[in-house]
This record gives sequence, C-alpha cells and structure tokens, in this order.
Amino acid sequence: MAGTAAEVTEDPLAARLAATVGEAHVLTDPDLRAQYEIDWTRRFGGPSRLVVLPGTTDEVAAVLRACAEAGAAVVPQGGNTGLVGGGVPRDGEVVLSLRRLDEVGTVDELGAQIVVGAGATLAAVQQTARAAGLDVGVDLASRDSATVGGMVATNAGGTHVLRYGGMRGQVLGVEAVLADGSVVSRLGGLGKDNTGYDLPGLLAGSEGTLAVITRVCVRLVPLLPARAVALLGVPDTAAALRVFAALRPLPSLSAAELMYADGLALVRAHADLGPPLEDEWPAYLLVECAAGTDPTEELGAAVIACPDVGDGAVATDASGRERLWAYRERHTEAISAAGVPHKLDVTLPLSRLAGFVDEVRGRLVELDPGATCVLFGHVGDGNLHVNVLGPAPDDDRVDDAVLRLVAHYGGSISSEHGIGVAKLRWLALTRSPEDIAAMRAVKQAFDPDGLLNPGAVLPPPG
Amino acid sequence: MAGTAAEVTEDPLAARLAATVGEAHVLTDPDLRAQYEIDWTRRFGGPSRLVVLPGTTDEVAAVLRACAEAGAAVVPQGGNTGLVGGGVPRDGEVVLSLRRLDEVGTVDELGAQIVVGAGATLAAVQQTARAAGLDVGVDLASRDSATVGGMVATNAGGTHVLRYGGMRGQVLGVEAVLADGSVVSRLGGLGKDNTGYDLPGLLAGSEGTLAVITRVCVRLVPLLPARAVALLGVPDTAAALRVFAALRPLPSLSAAELMYADGLALVRAHADLGPPLEDEWPAYLLVECAAGTDPTEELGAAVIACPDVGDGAVATDASGRERLWAYRERHTEAISAAGVPHKLDVTLPLSRLAGFVDEVRGRLVELDPGATCVLFGHVGDGNLHVNVLGPAPDDDRVDDAVLRLVAHYGGSISSEHGIGVAKLRWLALTRSPEDIAAMRAVKQAFDPDGLLNPGAVLPPPG
Repeated sequence: MAGTAAEVTEDPLAARLAATVGEAHVLTDPDLRAQYEIDWTRRFGGPSRLVVLPGTTDEVAAVLRACAEAGAAVVPQGGNTGLVGGGVPRDGEVVLSLRRLDEVGTVDELGAQIVVGAGATLAAVQQTARAAGLDVGVDLASRDSATVGGMVATNAGGTHVLRYGGMRGQVLGVEAVLADGSVVSRLGGLGKDNTGYDLPGLLAGSEGTLAVITRVCVRLVPLLPARAVALLGVPDTAAALRVFAALRPLPSLSAAELMYADGLALVRAHADLGPPLEDEWPAYLLVECAAGTDPTEELGAAVIACPDVGDGAVATDASGRERLWAYRERHTEAISAAGVPHKLDVTLPLSRLAGFVDEVRGRLVELDPGATCVLFGHVGDGNLHVNVLGPAPDDDRVDDAVLRLVAHYGGSISSEHGIGVAKLRWLALTRSPEDIAAMRAVKQAFDPDGLLNPGAVLPPPG
Repeated sequence: MAGTAAEVTEDPLAARLAATVGEAHVLTDPDLRAQYEIDWTRRFGGPSRLVVLPGTTDEVAAVLRACAEAGAAVVPQGGNTGLVGGGVPRDGEVVLSLRRLDEVGTVDELGAQIVVGAGATLAAVQQTARAAGLDVGVDLASRDSATVGGMVATNAGGTHVLRYGGMRGQVLGVEAVLADGSVVSRLGGLGKDNTGYDLPGLLAGSEGTLAVITRVCVRLVPLLPARAVALLGVPDTAAALRVFAALRPLPSLSAAELMYADGLALVRAHADLGPPLEDEWPAYLLVECAAGTDPTEELGAAVIACPDVGDGAVATDASGRERLWAYRERHTEAISAAGVPHKLDVTLPLSRLAGFVDEVRGRLVELDPGATCVLFGHVGDGNLHVNVLGPAPDDDRVDDAVLRLVAHYGGSISSEHGIGVAKLRWLALTRSPEDIAAMRAVKQAFDPDGLLNPGAVLPPPG
C-alpha cells in the first residue's frame, strides 16, 4: 500500500473519491490496480486512472457525480469474468468495481425472489436460494466469480436458457445509478408491472453503457432435486436438431448441448477419459431433465422414440451425471490446453444451424490450411461456441470470416457474451444504420456526455 | 362512403395519405371513424382527425413521415380491446390502425416461432400454431379481436403468465417504424442475441409512445394436449396463497386463479350455475395443469398434500374443465351486468396480498357505504382485478383510494392493462421523479417532437 496515499493526493479526483468511499477503497497503486485492468481472456485491457470500490448505492452515486463533474470516463466492473473486453479499462478510465456491494438478502419464499447486491456472486445467491428450497434459473461455469450485477449487465446465458431464459428473464427489478448520479429503483419484485417503460430490461444487456446496476431482485425457480442426463450419439448436426425438437416438449428438459467427435477426442486426450459410448459418433447431444420426481423414465421413453439416436448412455446418480457432463464441460480447458483459440460466441436460427456448421469448417481451412475448428454449444438456443486453433490470436481475418458467415446465415454475432469492445467492428453486420441510430439515441438519453463505458457496445459516432 | 372523397381533399394530410395508402383506407367520415374513436370500456375516447389503415410496413413508414412533416399527432391502434384509453384518440389525433397488417406467416417448427403482422389477431396465430403442434404462450379472453401488435405494445398478460411470462416474453423480435418514419427490424427470431440494446423488449409495453410495431416474431411453445383443472375451496386468501406456493413446483402448472364467495355468488346468479362444491368457501383457487401426458394424478397428489384445501373438484374432460373455468371466466360479465364498475388492475407482492385484500374492502365501504368490491385475479402473478360497484363511474376517489393502498402495500398500479391515459394521474405513486425523468429521456430519444400517442404513459412535461 506504500505510495497509495501520496498518489491519491496527486489526483484531485482520487482525493475526492477517497473522501467519499474511504482511502482504502481507492486504488491508485499500479500493482493493486493490475487485476482490474485485464480481462479473463488476457486479450483485452489497458491502464486505468484508478480503481474505486464503493460500498453502498449512495457511494456509487457519489462516485458517479464526482466523475461526471471531473469529466472522467467510468468502466463498471463486476467479477471481471467477461470475454469481450466490456468490463476492463482501455485508456485511463476510472474502474468502478461493484464487488463490495455483495449483500445477499433473505429469500422471499412466497414471492420466489431475493434482492442481492450487484457484487454478490452467483454461487452465493445459489447457496442462499437452495437453502430455502429454491434456485436461480441461470447457471454458468464462472459462478464463483461472476457477479449478479455483471450477469444482468451482460444478459448472461449458460446451460439452462432453454428452460428459464437468460439473465434478463431472471430480473424482477433493479436499482441502478445513472451517469449523473441519480438513482432509479424498482426493487418491488413484481412479476407483472406495466407502469411505464421496462428500464430493468433495457439495462440488462447494456454492458454498463447506460447505468451502473447496484442491486437486483432476482426471480427464483423451484429447486428440482431429481435429474437425469443422457449422452446421445447421432450421425450429424441435422439429426441432433431433430432429436432436440422431439425432446423439447418435455417440461423437464433443462439443457440440450451439442458437441462433435473432434472436440470429444480433444477432451478425452486432455482429461484421460474413456469413451462415452461403445462406438464413435460424428456428433453428440447431451440432454438433462430436472423435475420434482425422477424424470429418467420420461426422458428414456422420449429418446427411444427418436429414430435419429444411434446410441446413448443415461445417468441418474450424481457421479454418473457428472461423468457425462465432463465430456461437454471440459471442452474449454481442453481447447485452451491445445493453444490460444479465437473464441466466437454466435447464435444461428435452428433451421440454418446445420448448414452453418458444414460451411464454417471449410471456410476456415480455406483461410488457413492449418486451422482447426472445434465447435460446441447450447444447441437448444442455437448458440454455438466457435473455437479456432492455429491462426495467430491477433489474426482478425478469422473473426471476420466466422462473423460474416454468421450474418449470412441470419444469425447473431453476439449470443451470450455481448459486444464489449471485441465485436464493435462487426456490429453493422446484423444491425442496420436505423437500428444503430436508435441505440445511439438511447445511449445519448442516459449518458449524454458519454462517460459510461465509452467505446463499448456502440462505435464512436461519425 | 359519400362525402369521404370530398373531405379527403379538404384536409391536405388526408389527401397526402390517400395518395399513399389508397383513398379507401383513409377514413374521414365521422360514421366510419366512430368505431376507432371509443375504447372497449366506453370510458375513453375522443374525436380523431382521420383514421388511416396502411397495408404494408412501407405504407406505415410513409404515413408516419407525412404526419411528422405535418406535425400531426398519431395514436396507433390494434384490435382496440384496451381498457386504459391508450389506443384511442383524445383530441383530433390521427388514428393509425394496424388491422390490415394481418399476415400470419408459416410456422418455423424447428425454431418454434412465427412471424406475423401487427394486425394479426391472437386467435389467428393460435390457429396456425396449433395446426403445427405448437401454441402461443399467452392466452386471453379477447383473443378474437386483440392483435399481436397491440398485445406486444401493451405487454398483455392473461392466464398463463405464471408459466410462460407475459407478451414481452413471447417476443423473439419486432419490426417497428419510428416517429420519423425510419424502420427498425429485428425479425431473425434468435432467442439469444446480445447485439446491443434490447429494443424489442423496450418497445413491448411502451403503449405506442416510442414506435409503431408492424411485425412480430412470436415464440411458440409446445402444444400440450392433456389438461386437468381443479377448483379448490379454502378458508381465506392466506390459505389460497399457501396452496399456490405448494403447487408452484409442478412443472405442468399453467394457471392459478383466485376468486371469492361474493364474486362466485354473483356469477352463479347471473349465469344460473349450480354450486361448484358441496359447501360454500370464503375463497376459491382455480388451478390448471397442462402437459404432454395426463397431469391429473400429479395435480391430485399435490392437492391432497395441502392441509389448507377444504374441498375440491377436479375435471379432466373438456366439458368438466369448461364448467369449472366458467366460475372464474364469467366474473367480468356478471359484474358488468350488475352495474358499471370501476375496474382496477393491480399487482401486489405475494407476501402482502392477503393484507391488501383484507384492507381494501373496508377502505371502499368507508368511502362509500354502498360500495361493493368484487375481487378476482391471477393469483400466481399477484395480479388482482379490483371491481368496485356502487360509486358513480366518474368518482375518481375510488381509483385514488385503491391505487394509493396498492402503492402503500408495495404493489403496481398497472399490472397487465398498462397506464394509457387512465392511470396517468397516479404514475408518481410507484415511480420516483428520477425514474420518470429517465422514462421521459427515452421518450425524447425516440420521439423528440412528441407525436406518438401523446398524453399516454407519461404526463406532459412540467
């Protein structure tokens, strides 16, 4: 901490913020700032002017007022688990970390909801909800670090979107501080409330460019103790989609994940896992059902009725389920162990997903004969994670080729990760000038001086 | 039609619009305009300058450009089934009816979605979806008249919100025309798409004040052929809520409706129906489960486990289900037959709903000893329809007393009907000045000249 106090006094903004939130919560020392200045991918980041960690909503408001008066740009940051550079500084911004707003309220069991601070981790909220017989509708691998505020700001996804929707769908209300320091609060937790515009829904997914979320009222869902997982071998993507369509009517269906033989081979080699099925299949569908009572029979009957399923394994006990999930969940680490991948998170219309999959591999090999393309994703949402190994990490031609092909197929260039700064260049691929103009008008309405997360989501005007 | 052509030429705007959409689709004759100028409640309405019925999105854009250039205010209108005066003219506005945009596309079965024109009725979309083995997640009594565009613009609710969410939750995309005539289109039907701000979600529930919705991509849900309905007698509101909480984990639960002995007596007398249960109960819960296979056993077992249920009837065949639903669905007509009610549509936090119910009846009798208060609603959403008979229809003290009590209990003054013009006076009861200022900024961003549905949702500035 040596030097912090001295530096605080050198920057008048730092001094003012220290007077507001306490000196210990304004970081000016480069060593202390470092962890806030680079994102999870290690691809995005830059120097900050300082990092400020307010402890209350009032302090957040005071920080934003001070920054507005000083004309200082602010990058809000949650658990810093983002993958598109939307939560890290680029060039001397103030980092406003919400981590200290980590209060987890008590569960309203009748209302099936809980109010939590923006800095509460998903895992902390899950733990509290589950103790009351309820659960959070969204789950994702970074649950121990990802914060609820950040998850709302990025409209995070995960494996249960097909059942419960994304993070926006879990938001019953938010409290947020606007760029001028005014506080907007809708924490009543009313599922049905048509009293004016849906500001909470608008802030969800706005990546910190419209306001700073400070508290969230999170919808909770029933805790479902009985689970069954099936790993199904299928001849191709189209078959996987037909199986998904056949299983979709099951009310207990909670996840439908797609992977391929090459990804599975990479995982097996990396994690030293045996084969999931007797024979190898070109594609695999991993499905999970969850209910109050054992859904195994229901799932089994539905799977048997699918002529496209070549072979399958079903697990009902915890260790068996974990074993099957491992083939899917360990894709990320297996890919990272093989090199530094281009990671592209995209959605395709289900009706065009098979065509995209067939074409994207060829395109990438055309671009770079050494390229390897490992695909997997949340097939229930049409959401694919396209991982490209081989080309240099800064070879933007890879991103460009994949995202153009996505747009050609009527897909989304940003599925659950957001635009951040990583996809700014390609925004116009799927958003018309009129749409971008409308978004710019919204930005202008909330943040006329452009101080909140500048350079994220929308390209600079002009 | 005599006189129309002559009048068209008298109003230069009418002449310009007639040149754009055809003379037959610009109504200036007062007799032809009449049905567009008064709402379903007969409480709201006023004269229009003219009624224009464009037939395509391009024509809607041309109409809005012409109105913008003429400085003419525009009230968008769908099926005109609204209850808060949000879709009818007040004072010489142009009525822009979307009824001719009634195209129903083909079902995308794999994507579980359909693109329809704003003027398509819910019933038309339901029919097409069901023929493909799918269904719309929202259902409501006005399905034959209510249009999808209007339902999105008002974020309509209905009986299945607890399972599938409101109309906003069914929107996978919209095409909309902004006040300046520019067209924003997001009809790709991608469930997961974090490419910038959620404009479709913002337009949902904005009641025609931000843009004119012209097409909608509607999410479809599995068609569930097996249904079971139970009517349960309980001693009071708190018991009804406990029963609901116990049934909520059932994945097949599709509706949970509350009514009371006085409302049931009114319905029975009006419709000449026998008693639903052997004994009379102070409160009744009507629940419906829907699934791929018969949910009767599941529902029965869950009900039997509820100590609060005094008595119950279960119906699984269509006529029995219809008979039980009639006790709930015929409330509206039975109340209307008894007089002209004050109809207030409110939401309470579930934890405070019983307290509100106990207090509101007494408040109203204090106000007017002759007042009768009939309550019913979608208890799963905390959504009550408060019907007050006795006081004169224009006695605003009734609305004031009920809405203030709702606000006191932390509720919403506008649950599924919107603000329109009916509840403008009470907006500030549950929205802070900061919140209203933020909404005003959004309005300004989309409609700087204030030409879209002026006087609805937000009070005039200042």
